[in-house]
Amino acid sequence: MSHVPVTLRWEGEVGGHLVLLDQTRLPREVVEFPCRTVEEVWDAIKRLVVRGAPAIGVAAGYAVCLSVKNGRASVHDVVEACRYLATSRPTAVNLFWALARMRRVAEAATAVDGPALAEALLAEARAIHEEDRQMCAAMGRHGADLLADLPEGAGILTHCNAGALATGGDGCGLAPVFELARRGKRPHVWVDETRPLLQGARLTAWELTQRGIDCTLICDSMAATVMRAGKVQAVMVGADRIAANGDAANKIGTYGVAVLAEAHGVPFYVTAPTSTVDLTIPSGDAIPIEERSAEEVTEGFGRRTAPVGVRVFNPAFDVTPYRLIRAIVTERGVFEPK
Amino acid sequence: MSHVPVTLRWEGEVGGHLVLLDQTRLPREVVEFPCRTVEEVWDAIKRLVVRGAPAIGVAAGYAVCLSVKNGRASVHDVVEACRYLATSRPTAVNLFWALARMRRVAEAATAVDGPALAEALLAEARAIHEEDRQMCAAMGRHGADLLADLPEGAGILTHCNAGALATGGDGCGLAPVFELARRGKRPHVWVDETRPLLQGARLTAWELTQRGIDCTLICDSMAATVMRAGKVQAVMVGADRIAANGDAANKIGTYGVAVLAEAHGVPFYVTAPTSTVDLTIPSGDAIPIEERSAEEVTEGFGRRTAPVGVRVFNPAFDVTPYRLIRAIVTERGVFEPK
Repeated sequence: MSHVPVTLRWEGEVGGHLVLLDQTRLPREVVEFPCRTVEEVWDAIKRLVVRGAPAIGVAAGYAVCLSVKNGRASVHDVVEACRYLATSRPTAVNLFWALARMRRVAEAATAVDGPALAEALLAEARAIHEEDRQMCAAMGRHGADLLADLPEGAGILTHCNAGALATGGDGCGLAPVFELARRGKRPHVWVDETRPLLQGARLTAWELTQRGIDCTLICDSMAATVMRAGKVQAVMVGADRIAANGDAANKIGTYGVAVLAEAHGVPFYVTAPTSTVDLTIPSGDAIPIEERSAEEVTEGFGRRTAPVGVRVFNPAFDVTPYRLIRAIVTERGVFEPK
Repeated sequence: MSHVPVTLRWEGEVGGHLVLLDQTRLPREVVEFPCRTVEEVWDAIKRLVVRGAPAIGVAAGYAVCLSVKNGRASVHDVVEACRYLATSRPTAVNLFWALARMRRVAEAATAVDGPALAEALLAEARAIHEEDRQMCAAMGRHGADLLADLPEGAGILTHCNAGALATGGDGCGLAPVFELARRGKRPHVWVDETRPLLQGARLTAWELTQRGIDCTLICDSMAATVMRAGKVQAVMVGADRIAANGDAANKIGTYGVAVLAEAHGVPFYVTAPTSTVDLTIPSGDAIPIEERSAEEVTEGFGRRTAPVGVRVFNPAFDVTPYRLIRAIVTERGVFEPK
């Protein structure tokens, strides 16, 4: 939708640069963050200027194009850039998936001259981005079909941000909500603020407000009470990596929401593109979970809110076992992991 | 323990004043907040300078003494002060219980002269405070007996602050932890930060650190993951009001923790003095739940973290149904609500 600023875009042709919407500054400021080097994108991914598994994948694709110096690509530079970008964040698999695609283009092109390789890389990055847009649209349709029987004004609870800001298109976890709204249903979204980094409060509430979709912001600790009051008819979240058995890693707190949903008889859905599925990993136990700095918890709001020196545990993700997931919505259709 | 500043104390004799530890400024500053009028105490309770159901009760008792002007008490002034103080916060029943005791002293003393009434009021407020100290000690002993079989280093998860800062003595929910530590067990406390006002991060982590008790601070949304990892052997919380059937109102988020504990086979205990039990209320549905301002969620740390105008739901408490409570620890012993 045109009134929502674009999460990420490539400016120019070969030799151009990547422009990210700086998500660390939302909702107070809508500021773009231009990236002209691979290092700048690495830093942007690490600092969550761009975040959300699909968006990280798309950004990484474009980042590889930045390894092309003066319009001339070297296979060695590309492979090095891919290796380096893979170290930015460990959990979302879309990052590795996109980098593998870019590397394949480079490796297939050893005989080709530099400018042609540069063109091929940008074409691949654009293809990843366009496929992401299409996948978002398809996930929106499949998810909305799944929720078609919900009454008008039904409550949908979400955690973190799985909207347009998390993708190169129109969202994953929120795509069905946007599609329901397009179909004239009036979903009411309960937005977990999502500590420590408040992606729900800062990003999801902002996106929904921008689009005129009815929503209520709550602290993560209030989800149970809202469910108990019968106000939630479905939970919809995204995922950063899905194991072969259907276990899904997503933002810390998602697993707790899934347990609460089960206890209150609320269906819990994961919406993610198939690029999020990692068939090399048999179950969620093997998904690496990023731990982030203690300061995100103790100084997350620009002011110290805990005693100096206190020990902190700050995992960025958790794993929801497949048995708690009613269905996984992908661009190819709806799957029941059970 | 002498190295922990006192939550509240009466300075002087009749005609003296109440001194509170200003909990809104912890953990960064340890500052006292003197109250010389009933209105100042009302404001202090409202703004959570003093909080925690038992501490609110003790503070209210002393506040009534401040209605004595120039050492001369009038029954009318006392009754008015009680009525006014009762409007400060709606959920914790200890407030109403303490005010009822103070009013009874006044009403029994209609024939007595003013100075004697002032003496009687201060004696009653001091009795409430001393009883609270004794109750905390007894709750600590009963709770520690209950947890005596836990292995050394066992994980105890707590939500909000039910420590010395919540009482006139040595805590309610944390009293058993302090007693276990005294008995040479080395409990490890998992501290939910407790959004929106971060009583866990600001107060519980501070108290535990001051006392040298091992603890780890987590966001509320991480409790499920810590439980799933087998690191929590018991949950211990306080309560603001307990209905006749055992349903317990406590800080928002407690109910969710109780559901998670049940799902992970972790026993969930409430520790509260019998003054927290309200036999006039048959079940938790009838407990009034205070809703607080949206800004606690959207600007809780001096900086706006959500879009302007977004709707917010901010209940200060929730109700945990008795079926999720393994036992209620009181100063009179341990009860199983089931």
